[in-house]
Amino acid sequence: MAAMKWWGWGVEGIEFSCDDKPAFAPFIEEALGVDVRRPPTAPARLSDLAVPESRLPDSLRSALQQAIGDDSLTVDPVERAAHARGKSLRDLVRQRRGEFPRLPDVVVRPDSELEVQAVMEAGLDADAVLIPFGGGSSISGSLEPPPHEHRPVISVDLERLNRVLSIDTASRLAQVQAGVFGPDLERQLAARGFTCGHFPDSFTHSTLGGWIATRSSGMQSDRYGDICDITRALRVVTPAGMLVTRPVPASSTGPSVREMVIGSEGRLGIITEATIEVRALPERRQILGYLFPTFQAGLAAVAEIAASECSVSVTRVSDGPETRFSFAARVRPTLLERLQSRALAEVLTRRLHFDTRQMCLSFIGFEGSAGGVAAQRRCVGRIVKRHGALCIGEGPGALYDQKKFDLPYIRDFLLDRGVPADVSETAAPWSRLASLYDAVTSTAHGAFQGLGVQGYLMCHLSHSYHSGACLYFTFAFRPTAGSEMMLEQYDVVKSAIQQAFIDNGGTLSHHHAVGTEHARWLADDISAPGVAMLRGLFDGADPKGNLNPGKIV
Amino acid sequence: MAAMKWWGWGVEGIEFSCDDKPAFAPFIEEALGVDVRRPPTAPARLSDLAVPESRLPDSLRSALQQAIGDDSLTVDPVERAAHARGKSLRDLVRQRRGEFPRLPDVVVRPDSELEVQAVMEAGLDADAVLIPFGGGSSISGSLEPPPHEHRPVISVDLERLNRVLSIDTASRLAQVQAGVFGPDLERQLAARGFTCGHFPDSFTHSTLGGWIATRSSGMQSDRYGDICDITRALRVVTPAGMLVTRPVPASSTGPSVREMVIGSEGRLGIITEATIEVRALPERRQILGYLFPTFQAGLAAVAEIAASECSVSVTRVSDGPETRFSFAARVRPTLLERLQSRALAEVLTRRLHFDTRQMCLSFIGFEGSAGGVAAQRRCVGRIVKRHGALCIGEGPGALYDQKKFDLPYIRDFLLDRGVPADVSETAAPWSRLASLYDAVTSTAHGAFQGLGVQGYLMCHLSHSYHSGACLYFTFAFRPTAGSEMMLEQYDVVKSAIQQAFIDNGGTLSHHHAVGTEHARWLADDISAPGVAMLRGLFDGADPKGNLNPGKIV
Repeated sequence: MAAMKWWGWGVEGIEFSCDDKPAFAPFIEEALGVDVRRPPTAPARLSDLAVPESRLPDSLRSALQQAIGDDSLTVDPVERAAHARGKSLRDLVRQRRGEFPRLPDVVVRPDSELEVQAVMEAGLDADAVLIPFGGGSSISGSLEPPPHEHRPVISVDLERLNRVLSIDTASRLAQVQAGVFGPDLERQLAARGFTCGHFPDSFTHSTLGGWIATRSSGMQSDRYGDICDITRALRVVTPAGMLVTRPVPASSTGPSVREMVIGSEGRLGIITEATIEVRALPERRQILGYLFPTFQAGLAAVAEIAASECSVSVTRVSDGPETRFSFAARVRPTLLERLQSRALAEVLTRRLHFDTRQMCLSFIGFEGSAGGVAAQRRCVGRIVKRHGALCIGEGPGALYDQKKFDLPYIRDFLLDRGVPADVSETAAPWSRLASLYDAVTSTAHGAFQGLGVQGYLMCHLSHSYHSGACLYFTFAFRPTAGSEMMLEQYDVVKSAIQQAFIDNGGTLSHHHAVGTEHARWLADDISAPGVAMLRGLFDGADPKGNLNPGKIV
Repeated sequence: MAAMKWWGWGVEGIEFSCDDKPAFAPFIEEALGVDVRRPPTAPARLSDLAVPESRLPDSLRSALQQAIGDDSLTVDPVERAAHARGKSLRDLVRQRRGEFPRLPDVVVRPDSELEVQAVMEAGLDADAVLIPFGGGSSISGSLEPPPHEHRPVISVDLERLNRVLSIDTASRLAQVQAGVFGPDLERQLAARGFTCGHFPDSFTHSTLGGWIATRSSGMQSDRYGDICDITRALRVVTPAGMLVTRPVPASSTGPSVREMVIGSEGRLGIITEATIEVRALPERRQILGYLFPTFQAGLAAVAEIAASECSVSVTRVSDGPETRFSFAARVRPTLLERLQSRALAEVLTRRLHFDTRQMCLSFIGFEGSAGGVAAQRRCVGRIVKRHGALCIGEGPGALYDQKKFDLPYIRDFLLDRGVPADVSETAAPWSRLASLYDAVTSTAHGAFQGLGVQGYLMCHLSHSYHSGACLYFTFAFRPTAGSEMMLEQYDVVKSAIQQAFIDNGGTLSHHHAVGTEHARWLADDISAPGVAMLRGLFDGADPKGNLNPGKIV
């Protein structure tokens, strides 16, 4: 797996282009007042920026060389810059500007769990800071060393721990090293006829250990469960030694230490291995597109599906603004497609009396036996019909399925053109979703207005559960006064949205974790005694604060 | 809810009888060499026993009176004895013997969360020990004060916090006070058309808060989830104030404090309220009986059901010994039933060539719409047929459904006749269940043999999951040398079984918690660093060790 760009998403050479998407530039022009056809700013070159020297003490360097060998550590500036942060908007802007108050002093790549233990020992002996690094896709500030950290900082990159060690086919459990990237994991499992079924947006550039450390969810979590459900056992290198839990399906051994490690963002140790649930690759897999007359109708339909006997793999409903964005981002349609679109528009407006600005694109996924998928499709069909939906077949779903991991590239494309864009997501009970959506919408637009900027906000329901769902918001705006004020203005919008989550019964994050980005809302979400409990847990496991300090609490 | 007997299960006046079960006494005679038709020992009378005086300091008494009023606290010996322990075999034997090294000094019954907070404050001010008490059905020693505790001990009985406060019907969430007993909870929910679906064996004598504090599972957890899945939010009185989490369906706010409270057995605070998932009462509910030729065939069938598209509410498979026990415990059959039995026996032995000593009784439950239940039944039918099962219809399942909460009464019946009986349960991956079962069987019989006692061991699979299942063992024996050695011999058998769990990939408990009874195997299960992590968590939340000290770690 090639490392991600130190200044943006994905690997060098892959980027978003609007050349084959005729509606895209006009859409952005209307939405944000920016002409994206103008040439972008040149990508930053690290050699133009002031990268601080590594402060790795010689004694620690020797100890690490002893622990893992000389080839497995580097103080190279590009490596250190690439490991300094994740991929939040704030991260990317500061990386591109060359704002590097504190880079890791060294990046190590242990080959085995034993080497991770040796790194931990060397690090603790030197009173160093240890920050585990998976794919580097965090957008919550989970990877950045504290700006004024005076101790040596070690970024522990787990990419070499990338193997599926064994599969217990009778129990449908796989024992997997934590550093494996999503595609590599699925490739190794598929060779044995299995899938893990965990597909976060970051899938191509994130790792199993990262998913666990951040309590991740995937696009098919409605069927496969969130990472906390999939992860049955863990091996974690801690200051007290190897934390090892058993791969049992359930247990009442006190508060679950497995659950404590899930979401711990490196604060309790370095995850080296997990035993995860796997399932036989489904015989049939299908994602159907639907159009709902309104977002509220879409939410109501999915709430009903969640209470029904239908079992689905994906439930996704975009709001009006995101639906319009999706249509604008389509590749140039063929003549046939244009004719079909025209016929569809005719049906929608003339026969169904849809308001095309309110209309919402939805995808619902089905997996299983051919017969099971057909039965589930009928079950869902009856429900969505009652909520006024029109099924638009497999084409849009297949397209979504192919393109689903590409969205982060659009953010770089926009940022290259001076437009900051980012995401905020939450979860709430069904009864609160509509009002939460309304509140976030008016709050975000209020923030745009207060700043005097042209902005865009869009949303989709991304995961549904028995008692509620995740709402996933994306926002972008055209900053005033050049780019200097960009982060300050971004803060205003991002904070307004997060605060609206808290004020309207949502959680501060459904699957992006806390890091430093969301930490200030934590007490609002889990109460001050809850924060104190986390602090007690971290202090107990890591009394000197060597493990990714400053994150979560 | 009348309080349970201080010396046994259930309320006064209800007991097991074998008078209407003609096969029961001969079965016990053969299995254990004990004639249960002989008159039992007279029940213990508390007035004959030396109950230590309450050591409640006057200042704490005044503070508690101030906090909750004089009517809400008692130092009555029967109350203190009844709150001193749970209902493990060890508890019952010592209660009946009058071994009371340390009773609670006072039992308080707060009326509200505010009163629980006031009790917590008064208790902490006086450096007292606070032990929350729900139904008192613990069989893991979670309720007993440490024998040498010198501080005042307060048993906080939550029974007055028994209301369903609200139901969010759109989100299918109910906000419920923690002290509500199972039947009362279901009654309040059913009045609004809902069920929680949590039915542990202790259901009639256990509370929501107790289920949460011990990580409970219920008989229909295959459908409804374990208590950790059902519980969406918590309110907990802690030394640091009210711990309050949000009723969101999922969240990535660091390690889950909700999950930390689940299974905490009073070590982190007193649970006063939970928001739980509820579901519409099903249109149809059916439990079908099946006979498998062997236990292994039954396990294999359920493993296949767990991987299939069938969705079931109950999966239960008894082994041969438990099947024989179940048949022996039947009420006197009618003539028609006897004729049917004879016809069934004919089919089993002549046509299916079952070995009736190997044969295993199984119950599989279905819930949902009439059509859904029929479809699931067909789906299950195809699988169990491949494993050689014979469906014996609804009759046995209906009987099981009526009698399912009665088993603990049989234990008292046997104990009255000098026979100790108890249970141990575990969970393991599917691949290890058969060998774990064999190991426990040979270990327990080895223990019986080593002690020179006649003993009986039986087992059922009680809950199934994607990757494994719970095995639930019941054992009884006829102690040698009268009753004095009973607990020592019990320890030998119980320890052998628990150790076999640990040695064969099981967890120390699937749903009975740790308490003091299982604490010595905790490090074997979750590793020493896992135990240290729990200790850090508890020490952080309760630095002076006032909250149910000595439990779990």
